[in-house]
Amino acid sequence: IMRDRSHIEETLHLNTAELSAEFTAAQKKLLDIYHTAIKPMEDAYKYNELRQYEVTDGEITSKPMILFLGPWSVGKSSMINYLLGLHGTSQELYTGAEPTTSEYTVIMHGEKFRTVEGIVMAADSSRSFSPLEKFGQGFLERLVGIEMPHKLLERVTLVDTPGIIENRKQQERGYPYNEVCQWFIDRADLIFLVFDPTKLDVGGELEMLFRQMKGRESQLRLILNKADTVSTQDLMRVYGALFWSMAPLVNVTEPPRVYVSSFWPLDYTGDTSRELFMKEEISLLDDLNQVIENQLENKIAFIRQHGIRVRIHALLVDRYLQTYYDKLGWFSDPYEVLHDIVSDPDKYYIFKSILAKTNISKFDLPDKEAYEDFFGVNPMANFKQLSYHCSWSGGCLLDKLEKAISHDLPALLNSINTTPDTCEEKPKNRWRRQ
Amino acid sequence: IMRDRSHIEETLHLNTAELSAEFTAAQKKLLDIYHTAIKPMEDAYKYNELRQYEVTDGEITSKPMILFLGPWSVGKSSMINYLLGLHGTSQELYTGAEPTTSEYTVIMHGEKFRTVEGIVMAADSSRSFSPLEKFGQGFLERLVGIEMPHKLLERVTLVDTPGIIENRKQQERGYPYNEVCQWFIDRADLIFLVFDPTKLDVGGELEMLFRQMKGRESQLRLILNKADTVSTQDLMRVYGALFWSMAPLVNVTEPPRVYVSSFWPLDYTGDTSRELFMKEEISLLDDLNQVIENQLENKIAFIRQHGIRVRIHALLVDRYLQTYYDKLGWFSDPYEVLHDIVSDPDKYYIFKSILAKTNISKFDLPDKEAYEDFFGVNPMANFKQLSYHCSWSGGCLLDKLEKAISHDLPALLNSINTTPDTCEEKPKNRWRRQ
Repeated sequence: IMRDRSHIEETLHLNTAELSAEFTAAQKKLLDIYHTAIKPMEDAYKYNELRQYEVTDGEITSKPMILFLGPWSVGKSSMINYLLGLHGTSQELYTGAEPTTSEYTVIMHGEKFRTVEGIVMAADSSRSFSPLEKFGQGFLERLVGIEMPHKLLERVTLVDTPGIIENRKQQERGYPYNEVCQWFIDRADLIFLVFDPTKLDVGGELEMLFRQMKGRESQLRLILNKADTVSTQDLMRVYGALFWSMAPLVNVTEPPRVYVSSFWPLDYTGDTSRELFMKEEISLLDDLNQVIENQLENKIAFIRQHGIRVRIHALLVDRYLQTYYDKLGWFSDPYEVLHDIVSDPDKYYIFKSILAKTNISKFDLPDKEAYEDFFGVNPMANFKQLSYHCSWSGGCLLDKLEKAISHDLPALLNSINTTPDTCEEKPKNRWRRQ
Repeated sequence: IMRDRSHIEETLHLNTAELSAEFTAAQKKLLDIYHTAIKPMEDAYKYNELRQYEVTDGEITSKPMILFLGPWSVGKSSMINYLLGLHGTSQELYTGAEPTTSEYTVIMHGEKFRTVEGIVMAADSSRSFSPLEKFGQGFLERLVGIEMPHKLLERVTLVDTPGIIENRKQQERGYPYNEVCQWFIDRADLIFLVFDPTKLDVGGELEMLFRQMKGRESQLRLILNKADTVSTQDLMRVYGALFWSMAPLVNVTEPPRVYVSSFWPLDYTGDTSRELFMKEEISLLDDLNQVIENQLENKIAFIRQHGIRVRIHALLVDRYLQTYYDKLGWFSDPYEVLHDIVSDPDKYYIFKSILAKTNISKFDLPDKEAYEDFFGVNPMANFKQLSYHCSWSGGCLLDKLEKAISHDLPALLNSINTTPDTCEEKPKNRWRRQ
C-alpha cells in the first residue's frame, strides 16, 4: 500500500504559495547592495584570494540547499524520491540494498527533465556550484545535476551524496572526500544525516563527518530512517545509542533534533508507532518549510556576515600598508621591511588595532599566516590605502560598506519582516499563500 | 483501572522458587572460607584500618541490595510500592507530588511488619548496615528499616532514598550526602536511577551522582518513569536528551540500559505505547531476576576480590617490615628509619616488589600515602612478618589465603554452576523452581 502524500504538499504549501513580487524585489535589492557596497571592496583588496571564497551571484540568488548525508543504503535517495514523489516514475533516483549512489547528485528545478554533467555545472558561474571546480576533475566526474520541473524544487535544491563506507581508504575515492563534504556542509541550509537503525555503527568516517558539523550544528538534523523495520524496544535502544555516540562528537549544549520515521512511499510495517512516525514526518516537513520561509532572511544575514569579513580584511590590509609606508625609509630594502611586518604583525599592533576599531571577537580575525601568504602573492604596491578609495561622485568604499552593514542590510531585513498593511501577523513566507 | 500483576510474580518466580538447601550450604561454605582463610589475615595486619572497610558476616549473607536513586517525586517510592504490591495497604510507602521521602528507607524481609530505627540497624552487626554508623548520628536519624513478610523481600532488599533536590546546600542535609550515596552505590547489586520525563534537568547534584557511578556502571540502570504521561514524540526527545546529558558523565563505551515505562499500579494513560511499556517492565523484571539468580556467584566473586586485596596488603606490610629490620642498625633512630621508609617506599622498591610477585595491575595497589597514615597509627612493632604467621597444626596464613583465592573460592563457584545430575542445562537459579 502506498501512503497518502497530501500532508507533504500541505505542510510545504506547495500548491498554495507562489514566489511573490516582494520576494523578487528584495532579492534584487540584496544583489544590488552586494554589487555596489561589498563587491568593489572585495575587488580592491582581493578578498577572494585570502579566503578562496568568492560570493557569486549564483550563491545570492540560489535556493536553500538541503543536503543528505549518511552511511550507504540508509535510504537517502529513497527519501528524496519520496519527498519529490518520484517513486515509479522514470525520474526516480536509483536505490538499492548495495551502495547505489556513487555521485554527488544535485536535484534542482528546471523547465524539463534533464541531467547536467558536473563539469558543465562547475563552468556555469550563474550557478552556485562553480567553486566546486577546485576539487579537481576527479570530483567533477562524480558530480551530476538533475533538473526537473517540481513545486518543491522551485523552493529548494536537494543534494544526494554517496554513502559513507567505513574502512575505505581516502585515496580510493579519487577526490578529497572530507573537503568536498565540508564544502557542502558549510553551504547547506539544512543537513539531513540519515541512519538505518539496523546498522548503526559509528566508525571513523562518520565520526569525521560529525566533527565537520562544527559551527553548523543548527543546520544539522538526524534521521533514524526505516524506523518501522525494528521493534519499538529495539528502536529505543538504537535511538539512545545514537545520542550516546554523538554526544562526545558534537559540541553543543542542546542535542540535534533526531527524526524517527520511515521516509518512503510504502506503508509502515507493523502497527505500533505509526502515529509517532507520521508526526515525526510532519515535524520534519515543518522544519523544511521554515527553511523555505526564512530563506531571504538567512541570505541577507549571510551577506551581511560576508560584508563584515570583507570590511575586516580591508581594514587589515590598510593597516599593513600604513605600517609598511611608515617603516619604509629611503635606504631600506622594501623586501626586508615587508618580511619584517608580515612575519610578526603583532610587533606593529596590526591585528590589535583592528580589534580596537571593529568591536569584533579576536576569534573572528583571519590568521596572521594567511596574510603572510597573501602578501607573498600580492605585493603591497598592488593596493591603495582606504583613504584613496574615495571619489567625488561615489563617496568612499569604506563608508558604503559600513552603511551596507549597519543600515542597508538591516533595513532590508526589516522591510521583509514588517507588516505594513494589516494588523494581523503576516506570515513570514515570501512564498505568498494564494 | 489497576493493572494485572501476574507477570511480576511470574518473571521473578516468586511462587515457584524456594531457597534451596544447596544455596544455604554454599553460603555456609563461603562464610567458612572467609573466616578461616581471609579474616585471620585481615586481623593480623589490621586490613580494616587501611581501607576502613571490614567485611561483616552480615555482608556475606545479606541479600542483593536494589538501590533507588533519582530526583524527588519521580516515583521511586511508588515503584517500590508497585513491585511489592503495597498499593492501598497500610504498609504502603508514603508518596506524593512534593518531596515525600526524607529518609533512607531499607525495606527488607521479616516475619511481621515493623519498622526499625536507623540507630538500631547500625548497632546490629549481623546486618550489613553497621558500617553506616560512621556517617554520624545526623545520618542515622535519617535511616529507617521496614521489615515485612514478602516473597520478593526474601530474595532482595530494597533501599529507597530521599530525592535529589538541586540547589540545596550540602550542610542543610545534616549529613555527608555524597559519601552516604557512595556507600550505597558501592554495595548495591542493582542501581535504579529514576527520572520523570516532564522534569528532566541534569543539575549539579545529579551530575555528581552520575560521576559516583564510576566502576559501578554495570550495576546502573536508568528508568524513565511515568512515560505514559507525555506524548510519544516528547518521550523520544526526553529519552534522547537523557543519553545526551549522561554521555559526558558516564565513562563507558556502552550506554547504560534505560527502561521506559510507568511503574505504578494504575493503568497506563493513553493507548499509544502500552505494548512498549509492558515489554520494558518485563525486561526490567528479567534484569532483577538475573541479580537474584546470580547472587551467590556475585558474592563469591566479591569475597575473592576482597581476599586478593587483603593478600596485597599483607605482602606490602611484610615488605615494609623486612625493609625496616634490614635498615635498622644498632645505633639508628627507629623513628628516623620508619619515616625514611614510609615517606619514600619507592626508594626501597616496596611496591615494585609486590607488583613483581602478585601479577596485579599497579592501578589496583593502595596509595603510598595510605601506608604513611597506616604506620603512623600502627607502629611496626605491632606486626609480625608473614613467615612467623605459621603454626604446626594450622599451616601458614599466607598459604591458606592463597589457597582460598586460587582454589577454594573458584571451586565453590564451580560447584554451584555445575550440572552434576542431569544433562540438560540447569537453571542458574539457586532459588530452585518447584
